[in-house]
Amino acid sequence: MKQFEVTEDFLRELEGYIEEDNKEKVKEIILPLHSVDIAEILADLDNSSAQYVFLLLDDDTAGEVLAHINDDERIGFLNSFPAETIAKRFIYNMDTDDAADVMGSMPEEQRDEIFSHMDDVEQAGDIVELLNYDEDTAGGLMAKELAVVNENWTVLTCLRELSRQAEHLDEIYNIYVVDDDDKLKGRLSMKKMIFSPTSTKINNLYYPDVIYVKTDESAEAVAHIMQKYDLVAIPVVDSIGRLVGRITIDDVVDVIREEAERDYQMMSGISQEIDTSDSIWAQTRARLPWLIIALFGGMISAYMISRYEAEIALFPVTAMFIPVITAMGGNVGIQSSAIVVQGLASNTLKANNSWRNIMKELGSSMLNATICSSVIFLLTLLFDLDSLAMPIAVTISLFIVIIFASIFGTAFPLMLNKLKIDPALATGPFITLTNDIIGLNIYLIVGRIILTAF
Amino acid sequence: MKQFEVTEDFLRELEGYIEEDNKEKVKEIILPLHSVDIAEILADLDNSSAQYVFLLLDDDTAGEVLAHINDDERIGFLNSFPAETIAKRFIYNMDTDDAADVMGSMPEEQRDEIFSHMDDVEQAGDIVELLNYDEDTAGGLMAKELAVVNENWTVLTCLRELSRQAEHLDEIYNIYVVDDDDKLKGRLSMKKMIFSPTSTKINNLYYPDVIYVKTDESAEAVAHIMQKYDLVAIPVVDSIGRLVGRITIDDVVDVIREEAERDYQMMSGISQEIDTSDSIWAQTRARLPWLIIALFGGMISAYMISRYEAEIALFPVTAMFIPVITAMGGNVGIQSSAIVVQGLASNTLKANNSWRNIMKELGSSMLNATICSSVIFLLTLLFDLDSLAMPIAVTISLFIVIIFASIFGTAFPLMLNKLKIDPALATGPFITLTNDIIGLNIYLIVGRIILTAF
Repeated sequence: MKQFEVTEDFLRELEGYIEEDNKEKVKEIILPLHSVDIAEILADLDNSSAQYVFLLLDDDTAGEVLAHINDDERIGFLNSFPAETIAKRFIYNMDTDDAADVMGSMPEEQRDEIFSHMDDVEQAGDIVELLNYDEDTAGGLMAKELAVVNENWTVLTCLRELSRQAEHLDEIYNIYVVDDDDKLKGRLSMKKMIFSPTSTKINNLYYPDVIYVKTDESAEAVAHIMQKYDLVAIPVVDSIGRLVGRITIDDVVDVIREEAERDYQMMSGISQEIDTSDSIWAQTRARLPWLIIALFGGMISAYMISRYEAEIALFPVTAMFIPVITAMGGNVGIQSSAIVVQGLASNTLKANNSWRNIMKELGSSMLNATICSSVIFLLTLLFDLDSLAMPIAVTISLFIVIIFASIFGTAFPLMLNKLKIDPALATGPFITLTNDIIGLNIYLIVGRIILTAF
Repeated sequence: MKQFEVTEDFLRELEGYIEEDNKEKVKEIILPLHSVDIAEILADLDNSSAQYVFLLLDDDTAGEVLAHINDDERIGFLNSFPAETIAKRFIYNMDTDDAADVMGSMPEEQRDEIFSHMDDVEQAGDIVELLNYDEDTAGGLMAKELAVVNENWTVLTCLRELSRQAEHLDEIYNIYVVDDDDKLKGRLSMKKMIFSPTSTKINNLYYPDVIYVKTDESAEAVAHIMQKYDLVAIPVVDSIGRLVGRITIDDVVDVIREEAERDYQMMSGISQEIDTSDSIWAQTRARLPWLIIALFGGMISAYMISRYEAEIALFPVTAMFIPVITAMGGNVGIQSSAIVVQGLASNTLKANNSWRNIMKELGSSMLNATICSSVIFLLTLLFDLDSLAMPIAVTISLFIVIIFASIFGTAFPLMLNKLKIDPALATGPFITLTNDIIGLNIYLIVGRIILTAF
């Protein structure tokens, strides 16, 4: 199987066959595809065509496809099937973590009705358990499908038991070892087990050094641990150390990506997760709050300038350098806060070293401020200004603004982090705004002092 | 084993034992740790202490620790060992992908000397092969360690052969099936193999539907495919379809994170990957170029304003609204370009729909512009302005600036993408700068027209 991209041509061909009610042709082009691709195709079709295709899938594939359809589309899609079909054909064939996600995205009545039609009591119980966990915790990420053996078993018993457990598993990545109380003891290497005599006791084979997380660990912490230790799967234990599930890296990759995207959107002044496919109204709603805040910030700047109207009337050149001062303050502030936010996110920055970081930033900003101020002094000389007063005022202001913006840009996210507020908030329009206003004030004050002194 | 965080206390205790030359105590606290944590500790110690600890590790752990030390530190660290030790103790115990990374980060002479001391000719050959690939391609990411069986073998032969191959493998995630020409045919489920009669032919057991990549596929594309299909490992084939290696998700997670970080740094105006631990000079070097560009941009703004000096002297209130116009243009532009860049990165935005995206952005920005303009009109009325001329000029300017900035913010990254330039370039200070200058111009022109008309 090669990876597959949905093209307009493919969709038109498929829609043609659906219109002709040509089931054979539809199957011929759909069935060889991966469930992820089928889910993508269904999302591109109208609802009745999507159902037409969906009903041609075997139950196993249907379950997998369902797990890959996004929440909003799934609700509308599932509504057209009776609860019994959903329970016995689709949910039955899904892994518990996917099934819990699907059930969790449904209204409660529909969910209860589906539960009432489920024959596999064990699976139903697992799903109910998973639904109890907050979706941003290890419990919310984990699946109940496990390859697990008792420390007192022999290799032979293990092989027999695993063969039974394997019915519910796509692939065995790790075999976990528990004691008689179901407490996690370690992990067993598949390779070591296969190549050991069948009478060997598991006690003599397993590695006790297994990294695990508790059910209430945050999704971000799980992502961090799995990345740090290069883990493909991690076992999850409850508060008394009993093995209750496992998380695989593919579920965590989404957490990692979403985290990075959230920081990115925060910095660009977008208040919620949106993408190009969202409606105009959804996009506006995500963007407008920041714009309104920026607008009010701009009016504060306007008010401050209005208090210097007399000076500006006398020295209109003052207005010339307003944009460069505000832009430089904004840029420096964003750079500083981005470095801190990324350092905190990747754990390379230890939050208890705040002072050391601020002092280092001071060093770096002194260097930047000195270079930038020298450059701006030379550039202002190119303008046909009457005296040196304006170049000197601009140079001194820029120096102070850069130092201030970088200290503020470093200290503010560190402070938010201490207060347990997402430091990424400090990278958005807020920091630009604050630096704009304060930078402008510095410039106007320095300008007034120097221009009146000359 | 629980996950571990390096603390100041731990480091002080360790340094104490090293100073006392207390090998037993050092071993006692270091050996139970994961190689990732040991690597982190070594990075925090001075060079001689780090070597002291490193020499106490067994060869297997030493190889793993070496793979986790970052490039810069590793070079200094390895220089203190003879080439023979590096070859026979450290490289010998590493996976081929890690070994190739370590060798690739060395000067050529040192690398050749280490190769001359390697006894395992097969491993040396594998490393040489891996070093030939660009590190940003599938070939550069892959490892040569594979569990691979021939389609004509029986389960019994497979088990015997896998037991031999497994010596070089930490864990078997996937068993790949090849034909007599080493061409990739499919994958074999470990679970299916174990629970089949030993005389079964592999031909009758394997799944032919395996997703693979070619060696020259870009690292980003590999990351995208593995994420899309939730893969833990993916086989790599050469240009004629022969199986040459495999990539595991832990190596790809780094690619995903680095990609997100690059976009983030691009947006914040930082020209290269830096973090809080880099030197002041390195940080300044990464930040200064953008600041200098912003400075020149600011001077263009200054020049433009200087051409309106007469108007500003006459109507000093004009200066009041310069910051709000530039800030709004900048914010809208960043929002728009961030949505496009993220859409392109996650493949939810199809590049051939440029026009549809631009038209949609036009719709959204009309809505934003209408609301923001209405708000600013009301806010300007709060100021004690002599006539309605200024409020009207500001309102009209803001409307045009928002529309322009959002269209430009959408179209520019799409255009860069078409030209095969990283669209994330369009999110940085460059777009703010351009929007600043053009927004200012719009404001000054509209202001001149309306103020002279009244």
